[in-house]
Amino acid sequence: MNPSEASSPPPRALATPRYAIIVAGGSGTRMGADRPKQFLDLAGEPVLVHTLRRFTDPELGVQELVVVLPAEQLAVWAAICAQHQVGPHTVVAGGATRWASVRAGLAQLARHASGVVAVHDGVRPLTPRTVIEATYQAAHNHGAAVAAVVPKDSVRNLSQQGSYALNRARLRLVQTPQCFDLDLLRRAYQLPELSTFTDDASVVEDLHAITLVEGDYRNLKITTPEDLFVAEALLRAMRDPVNE
Amino acid sequence: MNPSEASSPPPRALATPRYAIIVAGGSGTRMGADRPKQFLDLAGEPVLVHTLRRFTDPELGVQELVVVLPAEQLAVWAAICAQHQVGPHTVVAGGATRWASVRAGLAQLARHASGVVAVHDGVRPLTPRTVIEATYQAAHNHGAAVAAVVPKDSVRNLSQQGSYALNRARLRLVQTPQCFDLDLLRRAYQLPELSTFTDDASVVEDLHAITLVEGDYRNLKITTPEDLFVAEALLRAMRDPVNE
Repeated sequence: MNPSEASSPPPRALATPRYAIIVAGGSGTRMGADRPKQFLDLAGEPVLVHTLRRFTDPELGVQELVVVLPAEQLAVWAAICAQHQVGPHTVVAGGATRWASVRAGLAQLARHASGVVAVHDGVRPLTPRTVIEATYQAAHNHGAAVAAVVPKDSVRNLSQQGSYALNRARLRLVQTPQCFDLDLLRRAYQLPELSTFTDDASVVEDLHAITLVEGDYRNLKITTPEDLFVAEALLRAMRDPVNE
Repeated sequence: MNPSEASSPPPRALATPRYAIIVAGGSGTRMGADRPKQFLDLAGEPVLVHTLRRFTDPELGVQELVVVLPAEQLAVWAAICAQHQVGPHTVVAGGATRWASVRAGLAQLARHASGVVAVHDGVRPLTPRTVIEATYQAAHNHGAAVAAVVPKDSVRNLSQQGSYALNRARLRLVQTPQCFDLDLLRRAYQLPELSTFTDDASVVEDLHAITLVEGDYRNLKITTPEDLFVAEALLRAMRDPVNE
Protein backbone atom coordinates (compact mmCIF):
# COMPACT_ATOMS: atom_id res chain seq x y z
CA MET A 1 0.00 0.00 0.00
CA ASN A 2 1.10 3.56 -0.73
CA PRO A 3 2.06 5.22 2.61
CA SER A 4 -0.09 8.26 1.82
CA GLU A 5 -3.14 5.99 1.49
CA ALA A 6 -2.45 4.34 4.84
CA SER A 7 -2.50 7.62 6.80
CA SER A 8 -5.78 8.85 8.26
CA PRO A 9 -7.96 10.80 5.81
CA PRO A 10 -8.02 14.63 5.92
CA PRO A 11 -11.04 16.31 7.58
CA ARG A 12 -13.83 15.67 5.11
CA ALA A 13 -14.95 19.32 4.96
CA LEU A 14 -11.67 20.18 3.22
CA ALA A 15 -11.52 17.02 1.10
CA THR A 16 -13.10 16.14 -2.24
CA PRO A 17 -16.90 16.10 -1.86
CA ARG A 18 -18.42 12.62 -1.71
CA TYR A 19 -21.80 11.53 -3.03
CA ALA A 20 -23.55 8.17 -3.20
CA ILE A 21 -26.24 6.66 -5.40
CA ILE A 22 -27.98 3.60 -4.00
CA VAL A 23 -29.81 1.66 -6.68
CA ALA A 24 -32.67 -0.60 -5.64
CA GLY A 25 -34.56 -1.86 -8.67
CA GLY A 26 -35.67 -5.32 -7.60
CA SER A 27 -39.29 -6.36 -8.01
CA GLY A 28 -39.07 -9.40 -5.75
CA THR A 29 -40.15 -11.89 -8.39
CA ARG A 30 -36.79 -13.73 -8.41
CA MET A 31 -36.96 -14.09 -4.62
CA GLY A 32 -40.40 -15.69 -4.74
CA ALA A 33 -41.32 -13.19 -2.04
CA ASP A 34 -44.36 -10.96 -1.65
CA ARG A 35 -42.17 -7.84 -1.45
CA PRO A 36 -39.21 -6.51 -3.45
CA LYS A 37 -36.02 -7.91 -1.90
CA GLN A 38 -34.81 -4.44 -0.84
CA PHE A 39 -37.83 -4.27 1.51
CA LEU A 40 -37.53 -7.78 3.01
CA ASP A 41 -36.87 -7.99 6.73
CA LEU A 42 -33.27 -8.41 7.86
CA ALA A 43 -32.87 -8.61 11.64
CA GLY A 44 -35.96 -6.43 12.20
CA GLU A 45 -35.40 -3.78 9.53
CA PRO A 46 -35.82 -3.66 5.75
CA VAL A 47 -32.68 -4.54 3.78
CA LEU A 48 -32.51 -1.06 2.21
CA VAL A 49 -32.52 0.62 5.64
CA HIS A 50 -29.39 -1.36 6.54
CA THR A 51 -27.77 -0.44 3.23
CA LEU A 52 -28.48 3.27 3.64
CA ARG A 53 -27.06 3.28 7.13
CA ARG A 54 -23.71 2.10 5.75
CA PHE A 55 -23.46 5.35 3.77
CA THR A 56 -24.82 7.76 6.39
CA ASP A 57 -21.94 6.86 8.74
CA PRO A 58 -20.56 10.34 9.55
CA GLU A 59 -16.96 9.12 9.29
CA LEU A 60 -17.44 8.64 5.55
CA GLY A 61 -18.55 12.26 5.10
CA VAL A 62 -21.00 11.61 2.25
CA GLN A 63 -22.58 15.00 1.38
CA GLU A 64 -25.55 13.79 -0.62
CA LEU A 65 -27.10 10.36 -0.75
CA VAL A 66 -29.55 9.51 -3.54
CA VAL A 67 -31.81 6.47 -3.36
CA VAL A 68 -33.19 5.27 -6.69
CA LEU A 69 -36.35 3.17 -6.52
CA PRO A 70 -39.01 2.05 -9.02
CA ALA A 71 -41.73 4.73 -9.13
CA GLU A 72 -44.35 2.32 -7.77
CA GLN A 73 -42.24 1.68 -4.65
CA LEU A 74 -41.80 5.33 -3.59
CA ALA A 75 -44.85 5.30 -1.34
CA VAL A 76 -43.76 2.10 0.43
CA TRP A 77 -40.32 3.59 0.98
CA ALA A 78 -41.82 6.77 2.44
CA ALA A 79 -43.80 4.64 4.89
CA ILE A 80 -40.64 2.70 5.83
CA CYS A 81 -38.72 5.94 6.42
CA ALA A 82 -41.50 7.11 8.76
CA GLN A 83 -41.12 3.92 10.84
CA HIS A 84 -37.35 3.42 10.94
CA GLN A 85 -34.37 5.57 11.73
CA VAL A 86 -33.13 6.51 8.26
CA GLY A 87 -30.54 9.23 7.64
CA PRO A 88 -30.99 12.19 5.26
CA HIS A 89 -31.25 11.30 1.57
CA THR A 90 -33.08 12.23 -1.58
CA VAL A 91 -35.31 9.81 -3.49
CA VAL A 92 -35.52 9.49 -7.28
CA ALA A 93 -37.72 7.29 -9.45
CA GLY A 94 -35.64 4.83 -11.47
CA GLY A 95 -35.83 3.71 -15.08
CA ALA A 96 -36.48 0.46 -16.89
CA THR A 97 -32.89 -0.78 -16.52
CA ARG A 98 -30.12 -0.44 -13.96
CA TRP A 99 -28.34 1.89 -16.37
CA ALA A 100 -31.37 4.17 -16.62
CA SER A 101 -31.74 4.16 -12.85
CA VAL A 102 -28.13 5.16 -12.20
CA ARG A 103 -28.51 7.91 -14.81
CA ALA A 104 -31.58 9.18 -12.98
CA GLY A 105 -29.57 9.19 -9.75
CA LEU A 106 -26.76 11.12 -11.45
CA ALA A 107 -29.22 13.76 -12.70
CA GLN A 108 -30.15 14.42 -9.08
CA LEU A 109 -26.49 15.36 -8.45
CA ALA A 110 -26.41 17.78 -11.42
CA ARG A 111 -25.82 20.90 -9.31
CA HIS A 112 -22.53 19.58 -7.93
CA ALA A 113 -19.44 20.71 -9.86
CA SER A 114 -17.02 17.97 -8.82
CA GLY A 115 -16.36 15.17 -6.37
CA VAL A 116 -16.36 11.40 -6.11
CA VAL A 117 -19.58 9.42 -6.39
CA ALA A 118 -20.22 5.89 -5.15
CA VAL A 119 -22.78 3.66 -6.86
CA HIS A 120 -23.98 0.88 -4.58
CA ASP A 121 -26.49 -1.97 -4.77
CA GLY A 122 -29.48 -1.43 -2.49
CA VAL A 123 -29.40 -5.15 -1.68
CA ARG A 124 -25.83 -5.14 -0.32
CA PRO A 125 -26.62 -4.27 3.31
CA LEU A 126 -23.41 -5.58 4.93
CA THR A 127 -20.61 -3.60 3.25
CA PRO A 128 -17.93 -2.80 5.85
CA ARG A 129 -17.11 0.89 6.22
CA THR A 130 -13.44 0.16 5.53
CA VAL A 131 -14.35 -1.15 2.07
CA ILE A 132 -16.46 1.92 1.28
CA GLU A 133 -13.71 4.25 2.53
CA ALA A 134 -10.99 2.44 0.54
CA THR A 135 -13.06 2.55 -2.66
CA TYR A 136 -13.76 6.31 -2.31
CA GLN A 137 -10.04 6.91 -1.67
CA ALA A 138 -8.93 4.84 -4.67
CA ALA A 139 -11.39 6.64 -6.95
CA HIS A 140 -10.10 9.96 -5.63
CA ASN A 141 -6.55 8.89 -6.50
CA HIS A 142 -7.19 6.99 -9.74
CA GLY A 143 -10.58 8.12 -11.12
CA ALA A 144 -12.49 4.81 -11.04
CA ALA A 145 -12.39 2.06 -8.42
CA VAL A 146 -14.53 -0.95 -7.60
CA ALA A 147 -14.51 -3.37 -4.66
CA ALA A 148 -13.77 -6.94 -5.70
CA VAL A 149 -12.69 -10.29 -4.25
CA VAL A 150 -10.82 -13.33 -5.59
CA PRO A 151 -13.25 -16.21 -6.28
CA LYS A 152 -13.06 -18.90 -3.59
CA ASP A 153 -13.95 -21.60 -6.09
CA SER A 154 -12.20 -22.79 -9.23
CA VAL A 155 -13.63 -21.05 -12.32
CA ARG A 156 -14.37 -22.60 -15.70
CA ASN A 157 -15.30 -20.95 -18.97
CA LEU A 158 -17.89 -22.60 -21.20
CA SER A 159 -16.70 -23.38 -24.71
CA GLN A 160 -17.99 -25.30 -27.71
CA GLN A 161 -15.92 -28.30 -26.60
CA GLY A 162 -17.27 -28.22 -23.03
CA SER A 163 -15.41 -26.00 -20.59
CA TYR A 164 -11.88 -25.08 -19.57
CA ALA A 165 -10.26 -23.89 -16.35
CA LEU A 166 -9.41 -20.19 -15.96
CA ASN A 167 -6.60 -18.88 -13.77
CA ARG A 168 -8.52 -17.94 -10.64
CA ALA A 169 -5.69 -15.72 -9.34
CA ARG A 170 -6.33 -13.36 -12.28
CA LEU A 171 -10.09 -13.16 -11.72
CA ARG A 172 -12.08 -10.90 -9.44
CA LEU A 173 -15.74 -11.08 -8.45
CA VAL A 174 -16.92 -7.49 -8.60
CA GLN A 175 -19.02 -6.05 -5.79
CA THR A 176 -20.20 -2.54 -5.01
CA PRO A 177 -19.45 0.19 -4.04
CA GLN A 178 -18.08 1.31 -7.38
CA CYS A 179 -16.68 4.84 -7.04
CA PHE A 180 -15.91 7.33 -9.78
CA ASP A 181 -14.82 10.85 -10.37
CA LEU A 182 -18.19 12.61 -10.78
CA ASP A 183 -17.32 14.16 -14.14
CA LEU A 184 -16.03 10.82 -15.48
CA LEU A 185 -19.23 8.99 -14.52
CA ARG A 186 -21.32 11.78 -16.12
CA ARG A 187 -19.40 11.49 -19.38
CA ALA A 188 -19.79 7.69 -19.35
CA TYR A 189 -23.55 7.99 -18.86
CA GLN A 190 -23.86 10.40 -21.79
CA LEU A 191 -22.92 7.52 -24.13
CA PRO A 192 -25.67 5.16 -25.34
CA GLU A 193 -26.70 2.18 -23.22
CA LEU A 194 -25.20 -1.18 -24.27
CA SER A 195 -26.62 -4.63 -23.53
CA THR A 196 -23.18 -5.62 -22.18
CA PHE A 197 -23.45 -3.23 -19.22
CA THR A 198 -23.69 -5.29 -16.03
CA ASP A 199 -22.37 -2.70 -13.61
CA ASP A 200 -20.90 0.81 -13.60
CA ALA A 201 -17.36 -0.42 -14.18
CA SER A 202 -18.54 -1.78 -17.53
CA VAL A 203 -20.18 1.58 -18.34
CA VAL A 204 -16.98 3.50 -17.56
CA GLU A 205 -14.25 1.13 -18.75
CA ASP A 206 -14.09 2.39 -22.34
CA LEU A 207 -13.24 5.85 -20.98
CA HIS A 208 -10.99 5.05 -18.04
CA ALA A 209 -9.05 2.16 -16.43
CA ILE A 210 -10.82 0.53 -13.49
CA THR A 211 -8.82 0.17 -10.26
CA LEU A 212 -9.72 -2.85 -8.15
CA VAL A 213 -9.95 -2.43 -4.37
CA GLU A 214 -10.00 -5.33 -1.90
CA GLY A 215 -13.68 -6.07 -1.19
CA ASP A 216 -15.02 -8.37 1.52
CA TYR A 217 -16.59 -11.83 1.32
CA ARG A 218 -19.25 -10.64 3.77
CA ASN A 219 -20.36 -7.94 1.30
CA LEU A 220 -23.23 -10.13 0.16
CA LYS A 221 -25.71 -9.21 -2.57
CA ILE A 222 -29.12 -10.50 -1.56
CA THR A 223 -30.50 -12.33 -4.59
CA THR A 224 -31.86 -15.69 -3.42
CA PRO A 225 -34.09 -16.59 -0.45
CA GLU A 226 -31.24 -18.29 1.46
CA ASP A 227 -29.18 -15.09 1.20
CA LEU A 228 -31.43 -13.51 3.84
CA PHE A 229 -30.54 -16.27 6.32
CA VAL A 230 -26.88 -15.84 5.43
CA ALA A 231 -27.04 -12.06 5.79
CA GLU A 232 -28.66 -12.36 9.21
CA ALA A 233 -25.89 -14.73 10.37
CA LEU A 234 -23.18 -12.43 8.99
CA LEU A 235 -24.79 -9.40 10.63
CA ARG A 236 -24.78 -11.18 13.99
CA ALA A 237 -21.14 -12.18 13.51
CA MET A 238 -20.15 -8.62 12.51
CA ARG A 239 -21.91 -7.12 15.52
CA ASP A 240 -20.19 -9.56 17.88
CA PRO A 241 -17.04 -7.67 18.95
CA VAL A 242 -15.09 -10.96 19.08
CA ASN A 243 -15.35 -11.11 15.30
CA GLU A 244 -14.52 -7.50 14.58
CA MET B 1 -33.25 -32.65 -19.57
CA ASN B 2 -33.19 -36.03 -21.29
CA PRO B 3 -36.43 -37.90 -20.37
CA SER B 4 -34.41 -41.00 -19.36
CA GLU B 5 -32.48 -38.91 -16.85
CA ALA B 6 -35.65 -37.53 -15.33
CA SER B 7 -37.03 -40.96 -14.43
CA SER B 8 -36.18 -42.48 -11.04
CA PRO B 9 -32.76 -44.13 -10.90
CA PRO B 10 -32.50 -47.94 -11.25
CA PRO B 11 -32.03 -49.99 -8.05
CA ARG B 12 -28.46 -49.23 -7.06
CA ALA B 13 -27.49 -52.90 -6.55
CA LEU B 14 -27.83 -53.39 -10.32
CA ALA B 15 -26.33 -50.05 -11.29
CA THR B 16 -22.73 -48.88 -11.76
CA PRO B 17 -20.89 -49.09 -8.42
CA ARG B 18 -20.35 -45.75 -6.72
CA TYR B 19 -17.41 -44.69 -4.57
CA ALA B 20 -16.47 -41.43 -2.89
CA ILE B 21 -13.21 -39.83 -1.75
CA ILE B 22 -13.57 -37.03 0.78
CA VAL B 23 -10.44 -34.90 0.97
CA ALA B 24 -9.81 -32.91 4.13
CA GLY B 25 -6.33 -31.45 4.12
CA GLY B 26 -6.77 -28.18 5.99
CA SER B 27 -4.45 -27.29 8.84
CA GLY B 28 -6.61 -24.52 10.24
CA THR B 29 -4.00 -21.80 9.90
CA ARG B 30 -6.00 -19.79 7.35
CA MET B 31 -9.03 -19.84 9.66
CA GLY B 32 -7.05 -18.44 12.59
CA ALA B 33 -8.59 -21.26 14.61
CA ASP B 34 -7.06 -23.70 17.07
CA ARG B 35 -8.27 -26.69 15.06
CA PRO B 36 -8.24 -27.64 11.36
CA LYS B 37 -11.40 -26.26 9.76
CA GLN B 38 -12.75 -29.77 9.01
CA PHE B 39 -12.96 -30.34 12.78
CA LEU B 40 -14.57 -27.01 13.74
CA ASP B 41 -18.01 -27.17 15.32
CA LEU B 42 -21.02 -26.72 13.06
CA ALA B 43 -24.36 -26.92 14.88
CA GLY B 44 -22.92 -29.29 17.50
CA GLU B 45 -20.89 -31.60 15.27
CA PRO B 46 -17.54 -31.31 13.47
CA VAL B 47 -17.78 -30.06 9.88
CA LEU B 48 -16.37 -33.32 8.48
CA VAL B 49 -19.07 -35.38 10.24
CA HIS B 50 -21.71 -33.35 8.38
CA THR B 51 -19.86 -33.82 5.10
CA LEU B 52 -19.57 -37.59 5.53
CA ARG B 53 -23.24 -37.90 6.31
CA ARG B 54 -24.09 -36.39 2.91
CA PHE B 55 -22.41 -39.39 1.25
CA THR B 56 -23.63 -42.15 3.60
CA ASP B 57 -27.25 -41.36 2.65
CA PRO B 58 -28.49 -44.84 1.61
CA GLU B 59 -30.40 -43.41 -1.36
CA LEU B 60 -27.08 -42.55 -3.03
CA GLY B 61 -25.87 -46.16 -2.73
CA VAL B 62 -22.18 -45.33 -2.27
CA GLN B 63 -20.34 -48.67 -1.82
CA GLU B 64 -17.09 -47.40 -0.38
CA LEU B 65 -16.32 -44.07 1.17
CA VAL B 66 -12.69 -43.04 1.70
CA VAL B 67 -11.73 -40.14 3.98
CA VAL B 68 -8.29 -38.65 3.34
CA LEU B 69 -6.76 -36.74 6.27
CA PRO B 70 -3.27 -35.50 7.16
CA ALA B 71 -1.44 -38.28 9.05
CA GLU B 72 -1.21 -36.18 12.20
CA GLN B 73 -5.02 -35.78 12.28
CA LEU B 74 -5.93 -39.49 12.14
CA ALA B 75 -6.02 -39.88 15.92
CA VAL B 76 -8.28 -36.85 16.36
CA TRP B 77 -10.62 -38.20 13.70
CA ALA B 78 -10.76 -41.60 15.42
CA ALA B 79 -11.76 -39.86 18.64
CA ILE B 80 -14.45 -37.87 16.79
CA CYS B 81 -15.83 -41.06 15.20
CA ALA B 82 -16.10 -42.63 18.67
CA GLN B 83 -18.21 -39.69 19.86
CA HIS B 84 -20.47 -39.00 16.89
CA GLN B 85 -22.70 -41.06 14.65
CA VAL B 86 -20.50 -41.54 11.59
CA GLY B 87 -21.31 -44.03 8.83
CA PRO B 88 -18.91 -46.74 7.56
CA HIS B 89 -15.80 -45.46 5.79
CA THR B 90 -12.10 -46.12 5.43
CA VAL B 91 -9.42 -43.61 6.42
CA VAL B 92 -6.22 -42.89 4.50
CA ALA B 93 -3.32 -40.57 5.31
CA GLY B 94 -3.00 -37.80 2.71
CA GLY B 95 0.00 -36.31 0.96
CA ALA B 96 1.66 -32.92 0.81
CA THR B 97 -0.79 -31.53 -1.80
CA ARG B 98 -4.44 -32.01 -2.65
CA TRP B 99 -3.33 -33.96 -5.73
CA ALA B 100 -1.26 -36.36 -3.61
CA SER B 101 -4.15 -36.77 -1.18
CA VAL B 102 -6.67 -37.67 -3.88
CA ARG B 103 -4.15 -40.12 -5.33
CA ALA B 104 -3.82 -41.75 -1.90
CA GLY B 105 -7.60 -42.02 -1.73
CA LEU B 106 -7.71 -43.60 -5.20
CA ALA B 107 -5.11 -46.19 -4.16
CA GLN B 108 -7.52 -47.28 -1.43
CA LEU B 109 -10.05 -48.11 -4.17
CA ALA B 110 -7.52 -50.19 -6.18
CA ARG B 111 -9.39 -53.47 -5.81
CA HIS B 112 -12.49 -52.16 -7.58
CA ALA B 113 -12.59 -52.92 -11.31
CA SER B 114 -14.98 -50.19 -12.43
CA GLY B 115 -17.55 -47.66 -11.31
CA VAL B 116 -18.00 -43.94 -10.76
CA VAL B 117 -16.03 -42.12 -8.07
CA ALA B 118 -16.92 -38.77 -6.48
CA VAL B 119 -14.18 -36.50 -5.11
CA HIS B 120 -15.54 -34.06 -2.54
CA ASP B 121 -14.12 -31.35 -0.29
CA GLY B 122 -14.26 -32.28 3.38
CA VAL B 123 -15.21 -28.69 4.17
CA ARG B 124 -18.37 -28.66 2.01
CA PRO B 125 -20.83 -29.95 4.60
CA LEU B 126 -24.06 -28.67 3.01
CA THR B 127 -24.15 -30.30 -0.44
CA PRO B 128 -27.78 -31.24 -1.25
CA ARG B 129 -28.30 -34.92 -2.10
CA THR B 130 -29.89 -33.92 -5.41
CA VAL B 131 -26.61 -32.29 -6.49
CA ILE B 132 -24.57 -35.37 -5.53
CA GLU B 133 -27.02 -37.67 -7.33
CA ALA B 134 -27.04 -35.51 -10.47
CA THR B 135 -23.23 -35.37 -10.58
CA TYR B 136 -22.90 -39.17 -10.21
CA GLN B 137 -25.50 -39.64 -12.96
CA ALA B 138 -23.81 -37.20 -15.33
CA ALA B 139 -20.42 -38.87 -14.80
CA HIS B 140 -22.04 -42.23 -15.46
CA ASN B 141 -23.43 -40.88 -18.73
CA HIS B 142 -20.51 -38.68 -19.85
CA GLY B 143 -17.39 -39.84 -17.96
CA ALA B 144 -16.56 -36.66 -16.02
CA ALA B 145 -18.94 -34.21 -14.33
CA VAL B 146 -18.57 -31.42 -11.80
CA ALA B 147 -21.14 -29.35 -9.91
CA ALA B 148 -20.94 -25.64 -10.73
CA VAL B 149 -22.94 -22.41 -10.44
CA VAL B 150 -23.09 -19.14 -12.39
CA PRO B 151 -21.28 -16.33 -10.50
CA LYS B 152 -23.75 -13.94 -8.84
CA ASP B 153 -21.33 -11.03 -9.24
CA SER B 154 -19.83 -9.41 -12.32
CA VAL B 155 -16.41 -10.89 -13.08
CA ARG B 156 -13.29 -9.03 -14.22
CA ASN B 157 -9.98 -10.37 -15.47
CA LEU B 158 -6.77 -8.63 -14.44
CA SER B 159 -4.63 -7.40 -17.32
CA GLN B 160 -1.55 -5.26 -17.75
CA GLN B 161 -3.81 -2.28 -18.46
CA GLY B 162 -5.95 -2.82 -15.37
CA SER B 163 -8.88 -5.20 -15.76
CA TYR B 164 -11.68 -6.02 -18.18
CA ALA B 165 -15.17 -7.45 -17.80
CA LEU B 166 -15.78 -11.11 -18.68
CA ASN B 167 -19.11 -12.50 -19.88
CA ARG B 168 -20.53 -13.87 -16.65
CA ALA B 169 -23.07 -16.05 -18.46
CA ARG B 170 -20.18 -18.11 -19.85
CA LEU B 171 -18.48 -18.60 -16.49
CA ARG B 172 -19.08 -21.21 -13.81
CA LEU B 173 -17.80 -21.33 -10.24
CA VAL B 174 -16.80 -24.95 -9.74
CA GLN B 175 -17.82 -26.79 -6.59
CA THR B 176 -17.56 -30.41 -5.54
CA PRO B 177 -18.62 -33.21 -5.87
CA GLN B 178 -16.60 -33.87 -9.00
CA CYS B 179 -17.45 -37.34 -10.31
CA PHE B 180 -15.50 -39.47 -12.76
CA ASP B 181 -15.41 -42.85 -14.36
CA LEU B 182 -13.05 -44.72 -12.01
CA ASP B 183 -10.71 -45.84 -14.77
CA LEU B 184 -10.54 -42.31 -16.25
CA LEU B 185 -9.61 -40.76 -12.89
CA ARG B 186 -6.94 -43.44 -12.37
CA ARG B 187 -5.38 -42.70 -15.76
CA ALA B 188 -5.41 -38.95 -15.02
CA TYR B 189 -3.65 -39.50 -11.68
CA GLN B 190 -0.92 -41.58 -13.35
CA LEU B 191 0.27 -38.41 -15.12
CA PRO B 192 2.71 -36.07 -13.32
CA GLU B 193 1.37 -33.40 -10.95
CA LEU B 194 1.17 -29.87 -12.42
CA SER B 195 1.14 -26.60 -10.49
CA THR B 196 -1.99 -25.59 -12.45
CA PHE B 197 -4.11 -28.32 -10.81
CA THR B 198 -6.70 -26.64 -8.61
CA ASP B 199 -9.28 -29.43 -8.56
CA ASP B 200 -9.91 -32.84 -10.14
CA ALA B 201 -11.54 -31.38 -13.24
CA SER B 202 -8.20 -29.69 -14.01
CA VAL B 203 -6.40 -33.04 -13.49
CA VAL B 204 -8.76 -34.86 -15.88
CA GLU B 205 -9.49 -32.23 -18.52
CA ASP B 206 -6.56 -33.07 -20.81
CA LEU B 207 -7.94 -36.62 -21.12
CA HIS B 208 -11.69 -36.03 -21.21
CA ALA B 209 -14.29 -33.26 -21.59
CA ILE B 210 -15.78 -32.04 -18.31
CA THR B 211 -19.58 -31.94 -18.09
CA LEU B 212 -20.99 -29.21 -15.86
CA VAL B 213 -23.92 -30.06 -13.59
CA GLU B 214 -26.10 -27.47 -11.83
CA GLY B 215 -24.63 -27.00 -8.34
CA ASP B 216 -26.21 -25.07 -5.49
CA TYR B 217 -25.36 -21.70 -3.94
CA ARG B 218 -25.79 -23.28 -0.51
CA ASN B 219 -22.98 -25.76 -1.27
CA LEU B 220 -20.53 -23.62 0.67
CA LYS B 221 -16.81 -24.36 1.07
CA ILE B 222 -15.79 -23.37 4.59
CA THR B 223 -12.63 -21.29 4.20
CA THR B 224 -13.02 -18.16 6.33
CA PRO B 225 -14.23 -17.72 9.94
CA GLU B 226 -17.51 -16.08 8.87
CA ASP B 227 -18.29 -19.13 6.68
CA LEU B 228 -19.09 -21.11 9.84
CA PHE B 229 -21.79 -18.58 10.78
CA VAL B 230 -23.12 -18.72 7.25
CA ALA B 231 -23.09 -22.53 7.19
CA GLU B 232 -25.01 -22.68 10.46
CA ALA B 233 -27.65 -20.33 9.09
CA LEU B 234 -27.93 -22.31 5.85
CA LEU B 235 -28.18 -25.58 7.75
CA ARG B 236 -31.05 -24.17 9.82
CA ALA B 237 -32.78 -22.96 6.67
CA MET B 238 -32.32 -26.31 4.91
CA ARG B 239 -33.71 -28.24 7.90
CA ASP B 240 -36.75 -25.99 8.06
CA PRO B 241 -39.32 -27.80 5.89
CA VAL B 242 -40.73 -24.44 4.70
CA ASN B 243 -37.48 -23.90 2.79
CA GLU B 244 -37.14 -27.38 1.31
